Amino acid sequence: MLKALRSRLPHRDFIYFSDTARVPYGRKPKEMVRGFASEIAGFLEQLGVTGIVVACNTASACALPELGDEVSVPVWGVIDPGVEAARRVTRTGEVGVIGTKGTIQSGVYQRKLSDAGLNVWANACPMFVHLVEEGLACSSEAEVLARHYLADMPRIDTLILGCTHYPVLTSVIQKVVGPGVTLVSSADVTAEVVANALGQDPSDGPGRVTHYVTGGVPAYLHTAEVIGGVEGKVIPLDVTRLADAGVSVRQGVSL
Amino acid sequence: MLKALRSRLPHRDFIYFSDTARVPYGRKPKEMVRGFASEIAGFLEQLGVTGIVVACNTASACALPELGDEVSVPVWGVIDPGVEAARRVTRTGEVGVIGTKGTIQSGVYQRKLSDAGLNVWANACPMFVHLVEEGLACSSEAEVLARHYLADMPRIDTLILGCTHYPVLTSVIQKVVGPGVTLVSSADVTAEVVANALGQDPSDGPGRVTHYVTGGVPAYLHTAEVIGGVEGKVIPLDVTRLADAGVSVRQGVSL
Repeated sequence: MLKALRSRLPHRDFIYFSDTARVPYGRKPKEMVRGFASEIAGFLEQLGVTGIVVACNTASACALPELGDEVSVPVWGVIDPGVEAARRVTRTGEVGVIGTKGTIQSGVYQRKLSDAGLNVWANACPMFVHLVEEGLACSSEAEVLARHYLADMPRIDTLILGCTHYPVLTSVIQKVVGPGVTLVSSADVTAEVVANALGQDPSDGPGRVTHYVTGGVPAYLHTAEVIGGVEGKVIPLDVTRLADAGVSVRQGVSL
Repeated sequence: MLKALRSRLPHRDFIYFSDTARVPYGRKPKEMVRGFASEIAGFLEQLGVTGIVVACNTASACALPELGDEVSVPVWGVIDPGVEAARRVTRTGEVGVIGTKGTIQSGVYQRKLSDAGLNVWANACPMFVHLVEEGLACSSEAEVLARHYLADMPRIDTLILGCTHYPVLTSVIQKVVGPGVTLVSSADVTAEVVANALGQDPSDGPGRVTHYVTGGVPAYLHTAEVIGGVEGKVIPLDVTRLADAGVSVRQGVSL
């Protein structure tokens, strides 16, 4: 997601918040995920951001649209763009969506795809995120689990990868579903929506990236490797004190 | 492990340290895991513990025996007791061991089992820990992955569950390996070793349990549910300040 945003908004600064101390969000209760999202949005608002992209399907499904009312800057999720992407791509109107338990159980994708006039098959794939984080995206385990999760898939022509980790599994999923199904992820469409809303870049210098992480820097760098590496500064945060941390960072207090 | 220790040492107080902010350890570099173990042991020593049980196979494989030289209290790992358990149980001398990538790649189990005169088959099962943490221990995913990981298992009569999470998968693993294979876990034997070393309990009151967690209390409680629940007090810790935290806790400073 950061990559897609950076390629459309190369002169903007980005803050990437990675809640490694509390992931996975996928099977946690909706209220808990909503609370995490609310804390993080408050932290980012204190830093003075222009807008917030909820680049996690589970958090988007659990915390939106309410989160938008809690902060004073625009908040974009990844689900509406994913639905829009599927609507553009499908020819038969038969689409599928896979995601975490939290995302699929929320029913948000299913409702929005139905509202767009599409027929929907949905399935939770709780182990996919771990395949990616374990660096097993191209392993025999990935294929075994993909065949398991997609065994009951009906005839569709479009499959939404409804979790920001899943694009890393593209080659395995494509192999299992066959060449007749188009895989769509919401990263590019979300970046398009955000870029259109923000308009012209404020400067022509190269944008900087700062990562805030809750679970320790070396562990974050190790995990980030498998989803494409990290550019920019990485700053550790105490997850138990997130509510006050934003003000401290803005005032230049060392954490 | 805590359960096994508590049942043998009911009057002892226990401190359970859960590094939820930095798990999984299983595929992290040996030096990183060793660093985590060293920090945590230092923290526990500052609290004034009588001894430290490294109740994680990956940390035992990566950090022992060196960790024992770093602190002034006895340190017990889970690998020697696991090897001892297998030696007691096997009749044919053909044993297997499964664990994380870190544990199996360290070769520690294989070397110690060979030294005990046993023939060893070993295999890493990196996704097993996630099945347990996702609450999927009795799912069809668990069976699919167990069949995958155990497909090449030769004729053995004893299989060491070389990861503290794996006993939760006992019923699935037993189903896949069949009734002729005895599953052994090191929890009970480790508790026996520790109880023998510590001797008589210091009092006859009920022992208390305190949990220190690095990844946020609600997220810890949610995950702990799937491995048997939590009794006692749960205290959050800032993983980025672990080195100083022990002294603060001991001095009664609020964290």
